[in-house]
Amino acid sequence: MGYKSDIEIAREAKKQPIQEIGAKLGIPAEDLLPYGHDKAKVSEAFIKGLAGRENGKLILVTAINPTPAGEGKTTTTVGLGDGLNRIGKKAAICIREASLGPCFGMKGGAAGGGYAQVVPMEEMNLHFTGDFHAITSAHNLLSAMIDNHIYWGNELEIDIRRVAWRRVVDMNDRALRQITASLGGVANGFPREAGFDITVASEVMACLCLADDLADLQKRLGDIIVAYRRDRSPVYCRDLKADGAMTVLLKDAMQPNLVQTLENNPAFVHGGPFANIAHGCNSVIATKTALKLADYVVTEAGFGADLGAEKFMNIKCRKAGLAPSAVVVVATVRAMKMNGGVAKADLGAENVEAVKKGCPNLGRHIENVKSFGVPVVVAINHFVTDTDAEVQAVKDYVASMGSEAILCQHWAKGSEGTEELATRVAQIADADMANFAPLYPDEMGLFDKIETIAKRIYRADEVLADKKIRDQLRQWEDQGYGHLPVCMAKTQYSFSTDPNLRGAPTGHSVPVREVRLSAGAGFIVVICGEIMTMPGLPRVPSAEQIMLNADGQIEGLF
Amino acid sequence: MGYKSDIEIAREAKKQPIQEIGAKLGIPAEDLLPYGHDKAKVSEAFIKGLAGRENGKLILVTAINPTPAGEGKTTTTVGLGDGLNRIGKKAAICIREASLGPCFGMKGGAAGGGYAQVVPMEEMNLHFTGDFHAITSAHNLLSAMIDNHIYWGNELEIDIRRVAWRRVVDMNDRALRQITASLGGVANGFPREAGFDITVASEVMACLCLADDLADLQKRLGDIIVAYRRDRSPVYCRDLKADGAMTVLLKDAMQPNLVQTLENNPAFVHGGPFANIAHGCNSVIATKTALKLADYVVTEAGFGADLGAEKFMNIKCRKAGLAPSAVVVVATVRAMKMNGGVAKADLGAENVEAVKKGCPNLGRHIENVKSFGVPVVVAINHFVTDTDAEVQAVKDYVASMGSEAILCQHWAKGSEGTEELATRVAQIADADMANFAPLYPDEMGLFDKIETIAKRIYRADEVLADKKIRDQLRQWEDQGYGHLPVCMAKTQYSFSTDPNLRGAPTGHSVPVREVRLSAGAGFIVVICGEIMTMPGLPRVPSAEQIMLNADGQIEGLF
Repeated sequence: MGYKSDIEIAREAKKQPIQEIGAKLGIPAEDLLPYGHDKAKVSEAFIKGLAGRENGKLILVTAINPTPAGEGKTTTTVGLGDGLNRIGKKAAICIREASLGPCFGMKGGAAGGGYAQVVPMEEMNLHFTGDFHAITSAHNLLSAMIDNHIYWGNELEIDIRRVAWRRVVDMNDRALRQITASLGGVANGFPREAGFDITVASEVMACLCLADDLADLQKRLGDIIVAYRRDRSPVYCRDLKADGAMTVLLKDAMQPNLVQTLENNPAFVHGGPFANIAHGCNSVIATKTALKLADYVVTEAGFGADLGAEKFMNIKCRKAGLAPSAVVVVATVRAMKMNGGVAKADLGAENVEAVKKGCPNLGRHIENVKSFGVPVVVAINHFVTDTDAEVQAVKDYVASMGSEAILCQHWAKGSEGTEELATRVAQIADADMANFAPLYPDEMGLFDKIETIAKRIYRADEVLADKKIRDQLRQWEDQGYGHLPVCMAKTQYSFSTDPNLRGAPTGHSVPVREVRLSAGAGFIVVICGEIMTMPGLPRVPSAEQIMLNADGQIEGLF
Repeated sequence: MGYKSDIEIAREAKKQPIQEIGAKLGIPAEDLLPYGHDKAKVSEAFIKGLAGRENGKLILVTAINPTPAGEGKTTTTVGLGDGLNRIGKKAAICIREASLGPCFGMKGGAAGGGYAQVVPMEEMNLHFTGDFHAITSAHNLLSAMIDNHIYWGNELEIDIRRVAWRRVVDMNDRALRQITASLGGVANGFPREAGFDITVASEVMACLCLADDLADLQKRLGDIIVAYRRDRSPVYCRDLKADGAMTVLLKDAMQPNLVQTLENNPAFVHGGPFANIAHGCNSVIATKTALKLADYVVTEAGFGADLGAEKFMNIKCRKAGLAPSAVVVVATVRAMKMNGGVAKADLGAENVEAVKKGCPNLGRHIENVKSFGVPVVVAINHFVTDTDAEVQAVKDYVASMGSEAILCQHWAKGSEGTEELATRVAQIADADMANFAPLYPDEMGLFDKIETIAKRIYRADEVLADKKIRDQLRQWEDQGYGHLPVCMAKTQYSFSTDPNLRGAPTGHSVPVREVRLSAGAGFIVVICGEIMTMPGLPRVPSAEQIMLNADGQIEGLF
């Protein structure tokens, strides 16, 4: 039997004009700023007018630790959104925007898959509505203003060895990771070491995704620490008077983007901060707007629940005053088998024992999510090779944890495949069973916050951090940053900091290599292990195969 | 009496929905890809369908050598377009897009001025429809693929000292002019000298602006020379298999943008190559599309006629098979006075003698343009301090040259102020008086082409070029590039290469400092003097004053 590829399905989509999608949420056509016929931004003025309305229910989709088998978190987010609409609920989804650069390295990341996709898929993987380009511009304007300030006399006494603000580009370009800039003599400035990150790693991205409105965005941008003086005192973006112009550059980008699923249900796709050095969730403004317009809002967080859900709860929900009504943890039989020790090549064969052996990874995520006071449902994202016995093994395991696992077939069937999940999730959300609270209070010490996450979420025995790091954390507490949440940057493949340690490890240590203050975004980044903020291209980049075919369609992007 | 500022006038504009503007040209709403309510791209499919139609008349607006007094070339282009519509003609204008970066250095460049403007002004000076961001992405993808190729073994044997392809950013950032890249050890590549230009200087920009369609664009991108081997043989973009992916990134950007004048007449704003190292005209595809849709198309070229009109004729028209029916040379009384030796501070006082003394600059441009076989009209762009006697002096001078000068008041009155000019231009165009031919044939030798321009346009006695440069030109001829036109890069302030030499100098020399082959764009760049391809920010960049005001409007951009 032949399955259609994601791109084939996406190209057959019967898209509705974006004005009709907006109308389903009660957005008047004049408040939709169209980008072509199938994308639009929701106007700032319209969003301001929603302030008095009631909020819908917020549902988070998260997952087990990712494996090479793939879990289908976005696919399930889309499938659940479509399923809720199918059973007569007014539902919208909120997901992140894709980064352009990586699409030219490995094959592009589609927005969902099979019959649970968001369209237009190609535009979403390329320039989309230009948000990331705006972020790149705003970021690099600040960079240029820093070196320009130094060039014209350095009144702020920036120590050029301690410029913390790098440049960004939305491209996988390892040659820019570390550079020497301002070469070429007197006219070009003062030579110094510098470098580029990929745009999604920009603190401007994190600021935009956490800001309530343009005024809040400008305040956050102003708070960014760009450099230090010789006496180690910080120099802020505000000191360079860059925050106003950066906000102007981000004026349009701050407005959430509306697109649609294959089933013509509304989808907000807005923002895309890194899930390691940032919080990995779509924008607060998109989520809040969706909650005013829909009765149910399905959203997702990056990586597995140990990173994504934890940050969603402890950073995004805490700071934005959001509270999820239910959490869906996505698992697959194949991923359970990989957690149970099966190699990728052998995933096709039935292996109930391996499924059972891998389930504790899922079990721990269920426990962790429940510890935030939110009810959990497991979605088993069905794959064609899954056997009934394997699926039953997962269901039995989850039942033994006091939760429920529901088989979903949205990839093959669209919303028909998530009716049961949607019905159950709506019941739970409507029952107001959640009693959400972040894992730690604002006033807890920074190191204690790190320990709390390491011990209660990762189940580590200890956090290892040398004196320099502990001193730095104490210094930030003294400077008034102690109330910030911590943003953990560790491997997504394991509860531990060792990517090869699958399942549900205990007794490990979490070594903290570095801590960084993202004063604009409003969190302390805690780096455990190697974190790459500028990817490189592979030996044969997918760009070599990307081209327009004779019909003008894009080939090779997926 | 109080005059309104450009931005005040622009904000009062009664814009029509872009679909209504498109309808005036017969573009169906489904073939307009909207960007908000007041900007749209014209679909590739619609443009392809126009092939069989008759062309309208092409009118070029050019100017005397620019002075600090300002000439108002774009303002006159807009005013003439509105004037033609006012007298019942179906007319469209075609101008270039603005570069984002420089707006944060000096005050932004509005699209026209007074009551002859194109709107939405702010978006046009910021991200607009994302074309320049797409060009930046396509350019930098190629850059990344070059260093990536070297990293993975350098099969093409690129000499890392001879990588000709730099990177670009749409920002004034002098710190990036000259850098050392790929530092940081084995994982980051092979350290080499590199640098950034501003996006408008990218050869990708020139390719996009000269390409007939996406297939032609991809061919041009493939032809770009990115580096040389130790044996000096060229490495092409095509060798790196980057041309397909770059074309995909430029798919949307290749579609012309439609906006409107303050009087709701259609304006295509598309492409913006540098006017020194590139040809300085809006895109061929926009001009050709406009000619299929309107009876009169008013367009402009960069800088004064010695650079802009010359390149428009010898590069754009030659390569695209276009032929102008008339040329308007814009002059102002104030600029004549400056050419006549008056300082900027003294421009307010009547000085008929200075006007007369400055007129030969105008006279030579008239002669030069006529040498292309195209009839000329002079537009005197009226300024409030101009006296009748001064205006009459210009008219008399132009009459003595066998041409006609018409006073225009579009800045103050909109199309009412250009009725006479529009009527006269339409008469000339309708009379088919033009007998256009480029200044030199394709088969002329490259050095002879440079000499032809230097002697016949600049009125220089000689071209100075050392043996190395002459050898290089001969080598390109041997390699099959001898048929290309030459693209002169010299100061815009004088016919000569000395910016302080105003008026109509003779007897000077044109020293050629460097020649570059833009094999994708299809011209040889001839650099005479210092050409800056990456501007810096001033001591107090305008970015410091750019911000959103309490009403959410952008302040400080103009």
